[in-house]
Amino acid sequence: MKKHNFSAGPCILPQEVLKKAADAVLNFNGIDLSLIEISHRSKEFVNVMENARGLVKELLSLPDGYSVLFLQGGASLEFLMTAYNLLKIDGKAAYLDTGAWAAKSIKEAKLLGEIDVIASSKDKTYNYIPKNYTIPADANYVHCTSNNTIYGTQIKEFPKTNSLLVCDMSSDIFSRQIDFAQFDLIYAGAQKNMGPAGTTLVIVKDEILGKTGRTIPSMLDYQVHISKDSMFNTPPVFPIYVSMLTLEWMKELGGIAAIEKMNEEKAAILYAEIDRNPHFKGFAVKEDRSLMNVTFNLTNEDDKEAFDKLWNAAGISGIKGHRSVGGYRASIYNAMPIESIKVLVETMQKLEKQFS
Amino acid sequence: MKKHNFSAGPCILPQEVLKKAADAVLNFNGIDLSLIEISHRSKEFVNVMENARGLVKELLSLPDGYSVLFLQGGASLEFLMTAYNLLKIDGKAAYLDTGAWAAKSIKEAKLLGEIDVIASSKDKTYNYIPKNYTIPADANYVHCTSNNTIYGTQIKEFPKTNSLLVCDMSSDIFSRQIDFAQFDLIYAGAQKNMGPAGTTLVIVKDEILGKTGRTIPSMLDYQVHISKDSMFNTPPVFPIYVSMLTLEWMKELGGIAAIEKMNEEKAAILYAEIDRNPHFKGFAVKEDRSLMNVTFNLTNEDDKEAFDKLWNAAGISGIKGHRSVGGYRASIYNAMPIESIKVLVETMQKLEKQFS
Repeated sequence: MKKHNFSAGPCILPQEVLKKAADAVLNFNGIDLSLIEISHRSKEFVNVMENARGLVKELLSLPDGYSVLFLQGGASLEFLMTAYNLLKIDGKAAYLDTGAWAAKSIKEAKLLGEIDVIASSKDKTYNYIPKNYTIPADANYVHCTSNNTIYGTQIKEFPKTNSLLVCDMSSDIFSRQIDFAQFDLIYAGAQKNMGPAGTTLVIVKDEILGKTGRTIPSMLDYQVHISKDSMFNTPPVFPIYVSMLTLEWMKELGGIAAIEKMNEEKAAILYAEIDRNPHFKGFAVKEDRSLMNVTFNLTNEDDKEAFDKLWNAAGISGIKGHRSVGGYRASIYNAMPIESIKVLVETMQKLEKQFS
Repeated sequence: MKKHNFSAGPCILPQEVLKKAADAVLNFNGIDLSLIEISHRSKEFVNVMENARGLVKELLSLPDGYSVLFLQGGASLEFLMTAYNLLKIDGKAAYLDTGAWAAKSIKEAKLLGEIDVIASSKDKTYNYIPKNYTIPADANYVHCTSNNTIYGTQIKEFPKTNSLLVCDMSSDIFSRQIDFAQFDLIYAGAQKNMGPAGTTLVIVKDEILGKTGRTIPSMLDYQVHISKDSMFNTPPVFPIYVSMLTLEWMKELGGIAAIEKMNEEKAAILYAEIDRNPHFKGFAVKEDRSLMNVTFNLTNEDDKEAFDKLWNAAGISGIKGHRSVGGYRASIYNAMPIESIKVLVETMQKLEKQFS
């Protein structure tokens, strides 16, 4: 029996992608070699890289002037690279503190210069997105996190600014329609909506680079990676290939517009049950609720044993909440089928019946 | 027909490893979930990481006091991390320049301080390993590259020094018996003898860290990664799992002693043919020849079309030499079966017969 996999990341991927990935490990495109034992400079893998890059541009409707990179190190290395590439010597950057990952991005950027934390929701365990903040006119860039996996919050209105706009979209890229051209730099670890852990998507407007006055180490320099088509050094071949397969799957589904519709439908069913069922309460404030990570707690902690037994019996996995929030977190990324959401809702209703 | 895969990297992996890897992409250890869709903090993946770490220590006979990490970014990021973690403020490091990758390690380290290039074989396109050099007594560390993939040279005698000894072993780790405890820091991109591209093995003596006086960005700080058991951020799950499988395969073969014996036998057959066959000549000087990358040229460039036709017909792939050296490079890593070497030798003999 296939599990109902609500893991926060690495997380559920489409079944057909997993099948194709397994095939490629044995014999890639019928070339009688495994995907993972050929040169990254072979025409077969160069095609994968080009295809993946093109699909990102197409799915996000990116205008000309952006480069798409597949790097390593996850968002955590991007925290440092953002500052290295965009924070001028003696410059300043503005950061929105909307969760543990945002806080980490601030910590790393501070190593390179002045960071102005313009708003924080830490006062309420990050259960909301701050909205009234002032961006200093002299900020080199504004950094935000579009979706906060741990707390289940999501930015609906992005900062309006004349500075550069940078966004960590690790946990909700490809999930909803946004004007992606409002951003100058987007980065995202693959392991939510794009693929397996091990590669990081970077989308950067070329014209913003090379203006800080810094000497940047090669591996941290976006211009180096752009000049080498993400092959300055050996790229993570398998994670990039599986990302390409997932991007193809998204395109076949009808692109971001179709995916957004499904995601809204899935989230609505689950949030409706949380709000209806007296045994549960949502964690994030309603207006900032995420379409990707649905966080909720029991109204009565005494129900824990009973509920845990119920969802385990239903074949549900990965819904334990993050330790800083407690309770439960159902991560319902693009590849999560609506059937699994319905199983979770039924399980929540079983708890209600059991105690009525 | 399975190809004879002489690719320099990513390169041949054991067939049984590829089969197990493909199975895990579909259903990992019978848990009804794919390896690449479960949390890296699940007990299943934590076991993989611990097992891989233990196997590295066992295969290399590492004494207590070393940490084993599985990171991202390849040797290229290690070039920077080495200097960040070991080069003192106002300190100095000594580097051996034995090839293009050594030169890159020097370039990145120079961003952080004084680098003394104590010897170089660049004068002869790196076809030998320099041997007479003086290590400055005040060097914080000495850096060398054990095997030079492009040129087919390999260090047989490592520098004797009272400074720390650092080695990039990307292309020959696990291939031969060495006293690994003579090194204070070893790093290696996985994609030669250990696994697929996407993870970097780092072996570091704990006591040498934290002594530079530098503030190190989190992702570049070995102490951060050690404190989090290589899970400071989401690790590259698939590359680490396949590395674990390859490490298990090496252990089953009889460990490094048995592997070294096979590697010596394989290399001897190929070098003997290069030296015997008048149509070929070796590139690297004999005493520095690599057991991993066998570089050779045609004595007469007019034979090129005929030879290329012959090896293509024999199902050989990946033996084109690096552009800086020309000719041919047969990479014969641990997983290369002796049968493939024999096919290459027969092909070289066919060329000889064709022109006799």
